[in-house]
Amino acid sequence: MTQATNQSWGGRFSEPTDAFVAAFTASISFDKRLYHHDIRGSVAHATMLARVGVLTEAERDRIIQGLGEIEAEIERGEIEWSVDLEDIHMNVEARLTDKIGITGKKLHTGRSRNDQIATDIRLYLRDEIDAVAAELARLRRGLIELAEAEADTIMPGFTHLQTAQPVTFGHHLLAWQEMLARDHERLYDCRKRVNVLPLGAAALAGTTYPIDRHVTAELLGFERPAENSLDAVSDRDFAIEFTAFASILLMHLSRMSEEMVLWASAQFDFVDLPDRFCTGSSIMPQKKNPDVPELVRGKTGRVYGHLMSLLTLMKSQPLAYNKDNQEDKEPLFDTLDTVKGCLRAFADMAPALRAKRANMLEAARRGFSTATDLADYLVRAGVAFRDAHEIVGKAVAYGIESGKDLSEMSLDELQRFSTTIGADVFEVLTLEGSVAARNHIGGTAPDQVRAAASRARTALDALQEAQHVA
Amino acid sequence: MTQATNQSWGGRFSEPTDAFVAAFTASISFDKRLYHHDIRGSVAHATMLARVGVLTEAERDRIIQGLGEIEAEIERGEIEWSVDLEDIHMNVEARLTDKIGITGKKLHTGRSRNDQIATDIRLYLRDEIDAVAAELARLRRGLIELAEAEADTIMPGFTHLQTAQPVTFGHHLLAWQEMLARDHERLYDCRKRVNVLPLGAAALAGTTYPIDRHVTAELLGFERPAENSLDAVSDRDFAIEFTAFASILLMHLSRMSEEMVLWASAQFDFVDLPDRFCTGSSIMPQKKNPDVPELVRGKTGRVYGHLMSLLTLMKSQPLAYNKDNQEDKEPLFDTLDTVKGCLRAFADMAPALRAKRANMLEAARRGFSTATDLADYLVRAGVAFRDAHEIVGKAVAYGIESGKDLSEMSLDELQRFSTTIGADVFEVLTLEGSVAARNHIGGTAPDQVRAAASRARTALDALQEAQHVA
Amino acid sequence: MTQATNQSWGGRFSEPTDAFVAAFTASISFDKRLYHHDIRGSVAHATMLARVGVLTEAERDRIIQGLGEIEAEIERGEIEWSVDLEDIHMNVEARLTDKIGITGKKLHTGRSRNDQIATDIRLYLRDEIDAVAAELARLRRGLIELAEAEADTIMPGFTHLQTAQPVTFGHHLLAWQEMLARDHERLYDCRKRVNVLPLGAAALAGTTYPIDRHVTAELLGFERPAENSLDAVSDRDFAIEFTAFASILLMHLSRMSEEMVLWASAQFDFVDLPDRFCTGSSIMPQKKNPDVPELVRGKTGRVYGHLMSLLTLMKSQPLAYNKDNQEDKEPLFDTLDTVKGCLRAFADMAPALRAKRANMLEAARRGFSTATDLADYLVRAGVAFRDAHEIVGKAVAYGIESGKDLSEMSLDELQRFSTTIGADVFEVLTLEGSVAARNHIGGTAPDQVRAAASRARTALDALQEAQHVA
Amino acid sequence: MTQATNQSWGGRFSEPTDAFVAAFTASISFDKRLYHHDIRGSVAHATMLARVGVLTEAERDRIIQGLGEIEAEIERGEIEWSVDLEDIHMNVEARLTDKIGITGKKLHTGRSRNDQIATDIRLYLRDEIDAVAAELARLRRGLIELAEAEADTIMPGFTHLQTAQPVTFGHHLLAWQEMLARDHERLYDCRKRVNVLPLGAAALAGTTYPIDRHVTAELLGFERPAENSLDAVSDRDFAIEFTAFASILLMHLSRMSEEMVLWASAQFDFVDLPDRFCTGSSIMPQKKNPDVPELVRGKTGRVYGHLMSLLTLMKSQPLAYNKDNQEDKEPLFDTLDTVKGCLRAFADMAPALRAKRANMLEAARRGFSTATDLADYLVRAGVAFRDAHEIVGKAVAYGIESGKDLSEMSLDELQRFSTTIGADVFEVLTLEGSVAARNHIGGTAPDQVRAAASRARTALDALQEAQHVA
Repeated sequence: MTQATNQSWGGRFSEPTDAFVAAFTASISFDKRLYHHDIRGSVAHATMLARVGVLTEAERDRIIQGLGEIEAEIERGEIEWSVDLEDIHMNVEARLTDKIGITGKKLHTGRSRNDQIATDIRLYLRDEIDAVAAELARLRRGLIELAEAEADTIMPGFTHLQTAQPVTFGHHLLAWQEMLARDHERLYDCRKRVNVLPLGAAALAGTTYPIDRHVTAELLGFERPAENSLDAVSDRDFAIEFTAFASILLMHLSRMSEEMVLWASAQFDFVDLPDRFCTGSSIMPQKKNPDVPELVRGKTGRVYGHLMSLLTLMKSQPLAYNKDNQEDKEPLFDTLDTVKGCLRAFADMAPALRAKRANMLEAARRGFSTATDLADYLVRAGVAFRDAHEIVGKAVAYGIESGKDLSEMSLDELQRFSTTIGADVFEVLTLEGSVAARNHIGGTAPDQVRAAASRARTALDALQEAQHVA
Repeated sequence: MTQATNQSWGGRFSEPTDAFVAAFTASISFDKRLYHHDIRGSVAHATMLARVGVLTEAERDRIIQGLGEIEAEIERGEIEWSVDLEDIHMNVEARLTDKIGITGKKLHTGRSRNDQIATDIRLYLRDEIDAVAAELARLRRGLIELAEAEADTIMPGFTHLQTAQPVTFGHHLLAWQEMLARDHERLYDCRKRVNVLPLGAAALAGTTYPIDRHVTAELLGFERPAENSLDAVSDRDFAIEFTAFASILLMHLSRMSEEMVLWASAQFDFVDLPDRFCTGSSIMPQKKNPDVPELVRGKTGRVYGHLMSLLTLMKSQPLAYNKDNQEDKEPLFDTLDTVKGCLRAFADMAPALRAKRANMLEAARRGFSTATDLADYLVRAGVAFRDAHEIVGKAVAYGIESGKDLSEMSLDELQRFSTTIGADVFEVLTLEGSVAARNHIGGTAPDQVRAAASRARTALDALQEAQHVA
Repeated sequence: MTQATNQSWGGRFSEPTDAFVAAFTASISFDKRLYHHDIRGSVAHATMLARVGVLTEAERDRIIQGLGEIEAEIERGEIEWSVDLEDIHMNVEARLTDKIGITGKKLHTGRSRNDQIATDIRLYLRDEIDAVAAELARLRRGLIELAEAEADTIMPGFTHLQTAQPVTFGHHLLAWQEMLARDHERLYDCRKRVNVLPLGAAALAGTTYPIDRHVTAELLGFERPAENSLDAVSDRDFAIEFTAFASILLMHLSRMSEEMVLWASAQFDFVDLPDRFCTGSSIMPQKKNPDVPELVRGKTGRVYGHLMSLLTLMKSQPLAYNKDNQEDKEPLFDTLDTVKGCLRAFADMAPALRAKRANMLEAARRGFSTATDLADYLVRAGVAFRDAHEIVGKAVAYGIESGKDLSEMSLDELQRFSTTIGADVFEVLTLEGSVAARNHIGGTAPDQVRAAASRARTALDALQEAQHVA
Repeated sequence: MTQATNQSWGGRFSEPTDAFVAAFTASISFDKRLYHHDIRGSVAHATMLARVGVLTEAERDRIIQGLGEIEAEIERGEIEWSVDLEDIHMNVEARLTDKIGITGKKLHTGRSRNDQIATDIRLYLRDEIDAVAAELARLRRGLIELAEAEADTIMPGFTHLQTAQPVTFGHHLLAWQEMLARDHERLYDCRKRVNVLPLGAAALAGTTYPIDRHVTAELLGFERPAENSLDAVSDRDFAIEFTAFASILLMHLSRMSEEMVLWASAQFDFVDLPDRFCTGSSIMPQKKNPDVPELVRGKTGRVYGHLMSLLTLMKSQPLAYNKDNQEDKEPLFDTLDTVKGCLRAFADMAPALRAKRANMLEAARRGFSTATDLADYLVRAGVAFRDAHEIVGKAVAYGIESGKDLSEMSLDELQRFSTTIGADVFEVLTLEGSVAARNHIGGTAPDQVRAAASRARTALDALQEAQHVA
């Protein structure tokens, strides 16, 4: 028996596939990961075929039992994957025919590998999305809790990495949480578009068998069958959308990472990362490196790259399925692994971040962080904002020269810049006064932070509830 | 008076900005495009400030009138934009102060350029999203209509650009439509996240003025104020999400383009593009080039590039606002222009595509496109699918050698490959029979195409209606 | 003994690394691929250390022998890689210490994992570049030979995928060859910058041991030691440059792929790809799919993605080494595997492409491909080019309407468009005349093609020779 | 006369181009930037045509004079660019025909817009590369000078943004310089491949006129004519290569930017950026923001995006020219503008960076930066490196607990961790001793820094000299 006959399509070919080409074009090395979902899809397909009379009940039962045994074999590591059989579909089907004979060959009736793989990926991705969502929720909850605990902790807020105004650490943590809340919504929006059944599209045009795609959709938990067979087998926009979600998520994680790395430096010294999330140096004995946030920051590139890869892959492909599409899986799989790993690491690490409150407070005290408060004070006293700005600018220039922060200047000194300034000015120049004064929705006042944390928790509960119901 | 004093922040600076640096860092050359939305945001801000008592009603009225005059001046081209004034905000404010004096300086109370620009972009993008959605809907309608008109037109369906099975042209057009339907949904999902008010976040921490952000949100038609000031001024994920939508859309348009270019070639010759969408050659007088689809295909790279640009821009930025963010606008603006241009061109061109039905039919006739139908025929007669596949493979090999399509072989010839084949085989070998037999949801049968077109129109109506109501 | 003590940096840590974090941050799963180059680098390092007196000769010998044994163990698959030992360096060193005791610990003197990994990657990449270059040369030679064999084969040349002017197939193949020639040069330009020694940079600042980096460079075949230790351990621009080379190469291969796919379609039918480079369909028995070019086209995205990944990775990293850099290896390794696989497949396949000469000729005959020749004829007769263009344009319009190519019109018919046309016009309207007339360097005339092929072979020989000498 | 006749290819068209399509497909809005190089190419073309007898000398002279006048008109802003004339080529030619009549129409003999635009871009890019190289050299010289001035300035060297070992600021600046040196070489490697003449390729196949491409190449300073006409008009790999160079350069600049932003923060406070390179805040009067490095860091995304744009553009394009290629110009132009702007800003700013030496020194003193020196001390005393590492790790743990740096511990305290430590240990624990000890090529010792600066200057001189000669 020649190699060509191992393959599902040998009839019209006059020479076997070149051995290197066989290995180069086979996908089994990575699509074997889909075995569970491939079998699950086949079980549903067989069930439907029996429902519409294409298979007998006995055939269906033999197929389903055989598939069950194969899944167990795979999980016990007993299957030898064959490159000559190209992919997960043919490997499973060949094993099925080994086990149950000619009936195994009937399973492929009314479908093609084109709709089969599209179904497998969607089933797999849907499960993975749910796993990603769970880690995302865990991370969000961890941040909300920490934010509540740090609602009164004052730190410098930065713009341009220059001290800008005092904020609370809890407020900062909730900024992270808000980013993730949008990512969470984006993920569920993507899930809607993943959750559609391609099976039944067959190779590209549908099939002549009297299939009932609503049955298959229901068996597999899909919301509905895909509306167009050509589109169903050929598009991968759902995978791109997921990878775009992941890119934005990693962008957000890279920002958090950057801040953790900064804060863990000797220069900032704002937080302590527990030793278990750090590693050392093989040469410098004093080092304690924030490996986890650095690595997550580095993995941003990985996910951006996969997005670009998938976008490039699909560019200009004519309908319907082309072999190019085989390249959709590795970027998607690696994106999923990366996202899950990064979220797990962050969800573990975030609640364990320990704020060095004294250092944060001291840093906020330097850098003229209440300059805006002084300007606002002047405005309340009738000075136009732009003029107040200039007055304070001059006071700051004096402060830099004389080495004094605004709250360290005497009233005399302050009045050199504006006689409007009175003794009550010192109240607005304290850090506590400054943060408490930003007391509106979205502001950094501790009460606002507590209220925002509470709303965030409610929104998260509602999102998860809605998804669970759906 | 020195240059430094033209700027909004000169107080603490000891030397003016370097002239090249001033030009290098100014954004007025591109953010002037936001003038209308900047002024609209300022009017709402002034209205709110008066509502809460920070401005008098008279001040508010003077400001609003002044801003209205400035908008008219801009539209008449009378404003000279100043690089020294850096951006649209300062240009407008400086002109306002010229016009109404010191009251103009009060407008900036309780806000910062950081929350102002974030608001401007969101207002602008929201309007542009609506414009994009309108063109997208127009294109979808054009495709649905053409699909109905071509529901019975037979053409070869391709996989791997090899003739696979006959499909109808209407079915193919609806595959395009389905892609766009998902893009349309993605666009509206993005719009939800755009439609949130940053104003009130001020520089990064909120403001000490007694602002009411719910009022501003309502005045500007935003769904709600952003929950966190640090997040509101620093994130641009909404712009990335829009650009990801646009990338997927352009990916889809590139696939349509590729097919139009192929179909317009002498080798395929499936469609005629009206002359008004084509151009010629300066040297080859016979040429009629499908410029519009080629150019749209080329513009795919442009939009992918902008997506990568924005993702890179935001990677690892610490909170809150950094100057890097100034680079968010040009990629977003160009993405919008590109998307609108491409959609407009396609919405004009799509209904004008003229199918060369005879050529399509003839092409479907060649290439053994009904081989699957023969295999299915054998399966219905009791042959296992995999065996049927091999029988047909051998018949095709014979056909290639003898120059005959399957329907051109005699019964004798066909029976050489399987005695199961009977005289009724010729019914399933016709193209019409083949397409009609794929008669289930998503299949290419003309009746299915008409039903799918009707459902597509209903879904489009519903989507637009829901958006209009919301 | 706790897990922490397995690691090379445990001293200052109070708790062991979290188990998930250990797995998440370890690199052994992918950097084990560097074992040979890691050991080679260590041998050179030990040799140098003995040369400068830091190791005794006996120590050096024991180390080198131990490393040799370890390499053999690895190649026999006897090493159990440990995630707790993080990476290839620590795995090898731990095994060395197992084997030879305390002397093994001396190997790391005067170096750090930071300069060690940078050295490993460069050694590895340099070898891989040479392997890539060999495949590239093989492909170029295959194309040159085929071009010579097809120097007289006429086919339509396309612009905008519209028939433009006749060209020879040999000329077209040499266009491919030219692209690859530039890629080949880019590869060697990149190699120069790879071939520099980081070792001796230690962690970031150099070392206090009296090392001689010129010795190590010579032992490892590097052109010179890197000039700056901070730069040597932290930059990965050489890997980005290689990936940029690879992206351009894949872009070129994607263009060749696109053309092969087009040419293998029933509509073009210009070439035959041997069965051994194609696969079939599990459902459509007639299919013979050009899998190899399709897959290569798809792999373009993969390599573009890796480029974007590495560029993103390095963006904004402060000096010197950061953990982010661990993410440099997988994209680089996968790029190398992809490039080698694609080139091997193409180098095998290219010489086996069989031109269907009659089909090519027939296609060139249609489509008014000699319209430019007619215009040139008119110009030679004194008509200004732009006027000639318009005359021919009208003749073509008539041809489309009447279904006649230019050479099929009578003299009478032709003279309707210009009385300048004489009976000698028919000579310039033949395909053979048309291609032969483009007889200058770079032109498509068969003689030019043969001369260009000869020059290409000479240039390739010279490039390889120069590299071999260097 | 209809609009169609304005165009260069109207003959065979039955309806004029749609007005929106005309604007959508026209390139004049951006390719007008090429006017000088377009005219320069036309002058050379006309000169060559006269040399081979296709034009008379009088015709040539009239054309050249006309073109000279047109260039002057353009520079005086007197030309009204026409969208109906599509591009720079047709706009110039139409104006030429206006001026000199029918002779103007002869200029296009033997060429096409396809080879013309390829020539224009290469001429333009070559000039721009020289301008980029000049700024790059200026920046490199500035860094070398500053490095020499700061060769003895001690600062902490970082890995993982944790204090690692002391380095000199001069050494750090030379790390930047090394990055740029490689970029400079890459730029010149790219220039070689840009400097090849496409003209003469005509539309795609060469021309039937007796052109002499060597003459044109020499007139335009190109190294040689392109070898293959199909390749010459269709590839844009040289533009991608340039953009890849630019991406790597911007990656490097983003790293320098990141460090400048860090160093300018209150937390690091290592450098002072002159006010003229900074801007302030409209709301926070105390702010002095490092706008220039931030903006440059942000522009990294812009250039990465353009690279991705061009790679996507060229993916899968069949030969030869397609309209897609029109999209090559804007990304390339913007990349050039960006690169020149960023380099100019940095070349101005770099020599003006003022090190705050006391702060740098103080920071190096903290963080156990000489821990490696202590380990090396132990090794020299006979302790195996890995054991020495562990001893020092424990000493550091004690130091963190007790708040003492290593040099602040008593001998007694140090000896608790190893009795091998003697009184001479304090020499190696000083910062000055630490940096001076790394005294080998590439090391941070001040003498090495000065020697490296000198070699860097010599190498830069040699590179510029070689390029000037070539």
